[in-house]
Amino acid sequence: MTSETGSLSIVTEGLEEICRDLENLFPEMVDIRRHFHQYPELSHQEVETPKRIAAYYRELGLEVRTGVGGRGVVATFKAAAPLKTIAFRADFDALPIQDEKDVPYKSTVENVMHACGHDGHTAALMVFAKSLVNQSERVQHNVVFIHQFGEEVTPGGAQAMIEDGCLDGVDAIYGCHFQSTMPSGVMFYKEGYIQAAVDTFTITINGKGGHGAIPHETVDPIVIASHIVTALQTIVSRNTDPLKQLVVSVGSIHGGKANNVIPTEAVMTGTIRSYEPEIRTLASQRLSSIASQVAQAMGAQADVQIDNGYDALWNHPAETQIAKRAMTQVLGPDAVSETPSVMPGEDFAYYTQHVPGSFIFAGAQVDEESSIYPHHHAMFDFDETAMLNTAKSFAAILFEYDNAE
Amino acid sequence: MTSETGSLSIVTEGLEEICRDLENLFPEMVDIRRHFHQYPELSHQEVETPKRIAAYYRELGLEVRTGVGGRGVVATFKAAAPLKTIAFRADFDALPIQDEKDVPYKSTVENVMHACGHDGHTAALMVFAKSLVNQSERVQHNVVFIHQFGEEVTPGGAQAMIEDGCLDGVDAIYGCHFQSTMPSGVMFYKEGYIQAAVDTFTITINGKGGHGAIPHETVDPIVIASHIVTALQTIVSRNTDPLKQLVVSVGSIHGGKANNVIPTEAVMTGTIRSYEPEIRTLASQRLSSIASQVAQAMGAQADVQIDNGYDALWNHPAETQIAKRAMTQVLGPDAVSETPSVMPGEDFAYYTQHVPGSFIFAGAQVDEESSIYPHHHAMFDFDETAMLNTAKSFAAILFEYDNAE
Amino acid sequence: MTSETGSLSIVTEGLEEICRDLENLFPEMVDIRRHFHQYPELSHQEVETPKRIAAYYRELGLEVRTGVGGRGVVATFKAAAPLKTIAFRADFDALPIQDEKDVPYKSTVENVMHACGHDGHTAALMVFAKSLVNQSERVQHNVVFIHQFGEEVTPGGAQAMIEDGCLDGVDAIYGCHFQSTMPSGVMFYKEGYIQAAVDTFTITINGKGGHGAIPHETVDPIVIASHIVTALQTIVSRNTDPLKQLVVSVGSIHGGKANNVIPTEAVMTGTIRSYEPEIRTLASQRLSSIASQVAQAMGAQADVQIDNGYDALWNHPAETQIAKRAMTQVLGPDAVSETPSVMPGEDFAYYTQHVPGSFIFAGAQVDEESSIYPHHHAMFDFDETAMLNTAKSFAAILFEYDNAE
Amino acid sequence: MTSETGSLSIVTEGLEEICRDLENLFPEMVDIRRHFHQYPELSHQEVETPKRIAAYYRELGLEVRTGVGGRGVVATFKAAAPLKTIAFRADFDALPIQDEKDVPYKSTVENVMHACGHDGHTAALMVFAKSLVNQSERVQHNVVFIHQFGEEVTPGGAQAMIEDGCLDGVDAIYGCHFQSTMPSGVMFYKEGYIQAAVDTFTITINGKGGHGAIPHETVDPIVIASHIVTALQTIVSRNTDPLKQLVVSVGSIHGGKANNVIPTEAVMTGTIRSYEPEIRTLASQRLSSIASQVAQAMGAQADVQIDNGYDALWNHPAETQIAKRAMTQVLGPDAVSETPSVMPGEDFAYYTQHVPGSFIFAGAQVDEESSIYPHHHAMFDFDETAMLNTAKSFAAILFEYDNAE
Repeated sequence: MTSETGSLSIVTEGLEEICRDLENLFPEMVDIRRHFHQYPELSHQEVETPKRIAAYYRELGLEVRTGVGGRGVVATFKAAAPLKTIAFRADFDALPIQDEKDVPYKSTVENVMHACGHDGHTAALMVFAKSLVNQSERVQHNVVFIHQFGEEVTPGGAQAMIEDGCLDGVDAIYGCHFQSTMPSGVMFYKEGYIQAAVDTFTITINGKGGHGAIPHETVDPIVIASHIVTALQTIVSRNTDPLKQLVVSVGSIHGGKANNVIPTEAVMTGTIRSYEPEIRTLASQRLSSIASQVAQAMGAQADVQIDNGYDALWNHPAETQIAKRAMTQVLGPDAVSETPSVMPGEDFAYYTQHVPGSFIFAGAQVDEESSIYPHHHAMFDFDETAMLNTAKSFAAILFEYDNAE
Repeated sequence: MTSETGSLSIVTEGLEEICRDLENLFPEMVDIRRHFHQYPELSHQEVETPKRIAAYYRELGLEVRTGVGGRGVVATFKAAAPLKTIAFRADFDALPIQDEKDVPYKSTVENVMHACGHDGHTAALMVFAKSLVNQSERVQHNVVFIHQFGEEVTPGGAQAMIEDGCLDGVDAIYGCHFQSTMPSGVMFYKEGYIQAAVDTFTITINGKGGHGAIPHETVDPIVIASHIVTALQTIVSRNTDPLKQLVVSVGSIHGGKANNVIPTEAVMTGTIRSYEPEIRTLASQRLSSIASQVAQAMGAQADVQIDNGYDALWNHPAETQIAKRAMTQVLGPDAVSETPSVMPGEDFAYYTQHVPGSFIFAGAQVDEESSIYPHHHAMFDFDETAMLNTAKSFAAILFEYDNAE
Repeated sequence: MTSETGSLSIVTEGLEEICRDLENLFPEMVDIRRHFHQYPELSHQEVETPKRIAAYYRELGLEVRTGVGGRGVVATFKAAAPLKTIAFRADFDALPIQDEKDVPYKSTVENVMHACGHDGHTAALMVFAKSLVNQSERVQHNVVFIHQFGEEVTPGGAQAMIEDGCLDGVDAIYGCHFQSTMPSGVMFYKEGYIQAAVDTFTITINGKGGHGAIPHETVDPIVIASHIVTALQTIVSRNTDPLKQLVVSVGSIHGGKANNVIPTEAVMTGTIRSYEPEIRTLASQRLSSIASQVAQAMGAQADVQIDNGYDALWNHPAETQIAKRAMTQVLGPDAVSETPSVMPGEDFAYYTQHVPGSFIFAGAQVDEESSIYPHHHAMFDFDETAMLNTAKSFAAILFEYDNAE
Repeated sequence: MTSETGSLSIVTEGLEEICRDLENLFPEMVDIRRHFHQYPELSHQEVETPKRIAAYYRELGLEVRTGVGGRGVVATFKAAAPLKTIAFRADFDALPIQDEKDVPYKSTVENVMHACGHDGHTAALMVFAKSLVNQSERVQHNVVFIHQFGEEVTPGGAQAMIEDGCLDGVDAIYGCHFQSTMPSGVMFYKEGYIQAAVDTFTITINGKGGHGAIPHETVDPIVIASHIVTALQTIVSRNTDPLKQLVVSVGSIHGGKANNVIPTEAVMTGTIRSYEPEIRTLASQRLSSIASQVAQAMGAQADVQIDNGYDALWNHPAETQIAKRAMTQVLGPDAVSETPSVMPGEDFAYYTQHVPGSFIFAGAQVDEESSIYPHHHAMFDFDETAMLNTAKSFAAILFEYDNAE
């Protein structure tokens, strides 16, 4: 605890104890995380992971609901005279990637890997719960531990768990994601939009194939697709408020097998990243209109399919300020920083649509060299002290509510 | 008459006489032409020119109809025992161009000029008629002399004169255009399409103007016009049989007044040149579809207007072969050549839609230097011997019908 | 003064006095403003305006420099024992627009008009100076009144005045712009970039003209310009960080006079709006590269000219917070709001490159109806109470420095 | 023999005999063709086919050279007092296609098939030779039978055989290709270009990959490829004489694997079809320039590879007229027709670059239903009487030279 936080000794005596506890429990966090790392389970196929989580909470003596929204686990700590009910969420699904790290805790499951740090999120939350139980008489709030399945694959587990009541009675919710490309030891916050809405599109141009030497008997889907790609650029360059954010990227284009045969179809896939709902809606509408009408203009039909991913994740300003203050208290001002928005999606978005809350990042860069391995990379790993910082931050946030009006 | 044509002395005695006559009458041709050159009249405003033509024919003792289809003059030579009725056509309108040549016969009318050789076409046809009258007993066919008004400006005079009966009873029709960029002394023929159909288009993009710094509140007609121009290229490159001919050119594009204001509209004009009716129809349809649907794709409206000019001019193969043979007879094989198609329009097209016929070119290049002045240029002039060659060619064509089955 | 500011009576006794004074002096502000409104002078041609300003300050007994950087006026208030030197800037040039308002103070000069509120900026600053002089014993800082010429036309007056020493010894600088489209009574602040860098470009495509029917003998500048316009969209859509801001707009495109003649050249003009220098540099580089190399790809040459306008205006965070606190104190929290960045340029940018400072906006919407007349419109006007709010804000900002460390 | 050809009885007594012979030998042609059909050999891998051909000629008592230019066979018939030396060429390679016809003579080799009629070309030429030998005393010319390998795969066998002397002493050369989509019983001729030059291109855009949500850190090869495809359209629409022929088709485009990852590269392949060498050169130059400079304009590199296929095949006018007259003589005027140019390539092109000659087509449509199977289709077959018509045409062409000056 830093010198700046000297004055907190009075009001947050329990927080100091818990942080000390968490430091002692760090080896257990590492053990739990590495176990999950060795036995990862794909999104929406998680079986052993939720079982193990539930067992841990039962052992702590907490009330546990399993199968929440499908495969989720929700444990609840009840304070004697609760002021508030605060929820913390960790996701626990893994990715269809072959682990190529050379470490003792390497994945034992072929083509499945915790390449996004969810194993660490889970371990940090579980051990945080233990630390609270250890100091239960000093905790003035009910605490809900939400262990979510299927974050990586739409539809994620968040909406199902919310529908199944995981937020019932909750006053505020927090979550954290490790960031292997951000400096370890630093926690990050951001008011407002912190992660983008992610929509995926597929455009199929149905033309008419034929010999490359007789183009007039064909409807050339490659030329049409090209005109569509160039026209799609105007969604960002012309149709979007320059002060707002939007990305429309075509990630793949495929058509034709031979140099001298004009194919019947060309297929493009891409991604749309946005924050604000109006911009998101605009992007989809413009994309559909451009693809279908440019195709028609050239005599073809375009089939446009847009798969909506998660909504953009919006952090409530007040809850974000609480997190910022709390983290500054336990980690010091140099260890707390504002992050710009990031473009990937996150279904934590749905929790903050229902209750106030904020999503934070824990810097988790192993070393400069490893930082070249981003999330979802076969060599991905993270600095495990991020787990400790996350758990301490959660504790500080919880105690910050002691003084909330 | 060349040595190759020695054998023609038997069958075409009259032709020799006529050709000799025409050579003697060449000064008169020049006089007539230069008079018209000094007193040109704009298309559809011709008054004195048809009067003078009619008077000439009346003096020859021929039957004359004036005001044909409006301002046309039709004179008819009647043979004693006619085998066929053959028509020849010359146009007599001038252009809104200021004559900048320094010659004695320079136009006396400001901003009006015979910059396309119609004065010469007219003089050649008139004196050809005189030569026939001189040898009338040797002429075995009725001959119709069609002097047409308004060739330069749509709708030309041809259709109106046809509707007014100028082709009634006609078995075949011929016409000739001088070409100041082709070698003097040579006559040109071509079977099939020799001149293009010319259509004109105007595309107006109605977008929504606004400040250049807030594009999202506008519908940018310049960006849309640009996408349309690039897409229009596919009409030729993709939609047209590579073995057939089509040109789609945007000749002007205009939009906006200030660098920082997105304008409300952008306007493009252009030209479509085609031969075959299906290609012509296709071009208009594709152009309309591309302009209107690309505009819609980007949130604007395109107003597309297509003004149809003359149809493509198609020379009947048999009549063209007759002309080729006939011209070879009187001018020799070195003075007769095949021409490729040319792209400007010509309303002689309508005559060959009604009766068999062929349109020929007379090379009329003054000298190498002057050939840099194309038709419709303020310095345009032509080698006046083209008139003589044209008249001789007409005579030979007429006599060629003596032996036709 | 609002009830929330009751506690300020102790520390800012002088501010209360000054604000009361300013309210009393409001009619004088209006008179001054309306005089300038009637006698506007174009940028870099101002003669009478700076004379009148200088006379006013001399009458107040302040030290005055004229001809600063050309036509600027700088007056200085000297405190007895100055803690700091704080500068305030107002611009005084008018626009080449015909005033079409029907008001008694309508411009008397044909085609010249204060259509951007500089008359009001000037009046507010002058009367603010008078109020300070009235309470001079309570002012603890030197105050520099910078009256700038030529803000509307590049190069503006700011850089010349800075070079001529107007910021010498200045610790912080503030300026204000009225906004006729923002609600009157509200003052606006923004940390960081508040106004864009404005660059102007002209792209001339030098192709080869010719007849529209023979495109292969031309290099078609309209088609090339169209490809460039579509390619320019990628600067924003692909080359720019989606979290940052850039606008590239083509405001005009012109080429060709006839539908059937491919012109020799096509010319486009446009505007680039950016905040961060790297984005600005990138935009110019990409634009040059795209225009010149796409033109070359198609056989033409593009001449690209980029005229750099003002840099983006960056408000220092600390000075902005001072302004926010100060304005909240005198006007109450409901009258102070954060503004998003705006896209027009402003040469106040150069002052904050030299000394800390912040530029604020004063809401000045006359009524809902009039708000449809933006700045630079012939019907432009503003709510004159914006002058009072601006002067009070300046006063509050000045007194906020009494407590600065 | 038709009635129109009554007068030929005097001069071409031998031709009548040979045509009668050929009719009698038709079953042998069918046998030979079907044998080859069952035992097809791929281009440049032919072993048994040339052996069998050589054996046949040896049996006829003709002089035979094998291994000409690699795998070619050249047999020569020597006339007693030869006037001229006339060559006829047939190709004998097959294609890598699985025969899916249900006929007794179906290919016995997996994935190899005579799907282009070369088996029939070969049989017709062999039996034509036999018919000449049968009437050898009536043949007044030396005749060279050129059996060519590897026509389907660049570099074809023609150039190698020419270098190896197959045209030495040859005065004129003829060849024939069956056309399964043209009416059986009709032979086709065309002066000038009859088959296109075929060039193949591959354009690889080397950009910079990255996450679809951060386009500014990438150089997007899909967007660049799209701009190139749209720009390539101008080669035909703007750079090519509208009266000449060119096709530039992109047959395939491939880039990217995931919707949210911008790939490093995109690859396009395509075909260029042209007749005249200047147009061909222009097309390659424009394509290279557009691809490489548009890529550079957008910050990428384009690797452009153009593989030149066969030159366009040009039929000499005089030799074509000889073929037309000859075929009309033996088959009648209704069985001889002019063909438009076709777009596929043919290495007969090289023979007519060295000696005068002409390439003709034999209509070979089995019936209306089967005509839907074009050449190179797994169900391809042809009407075997095309072999008889071809052999008769060759005979008539040969005898036409009896009277040549």
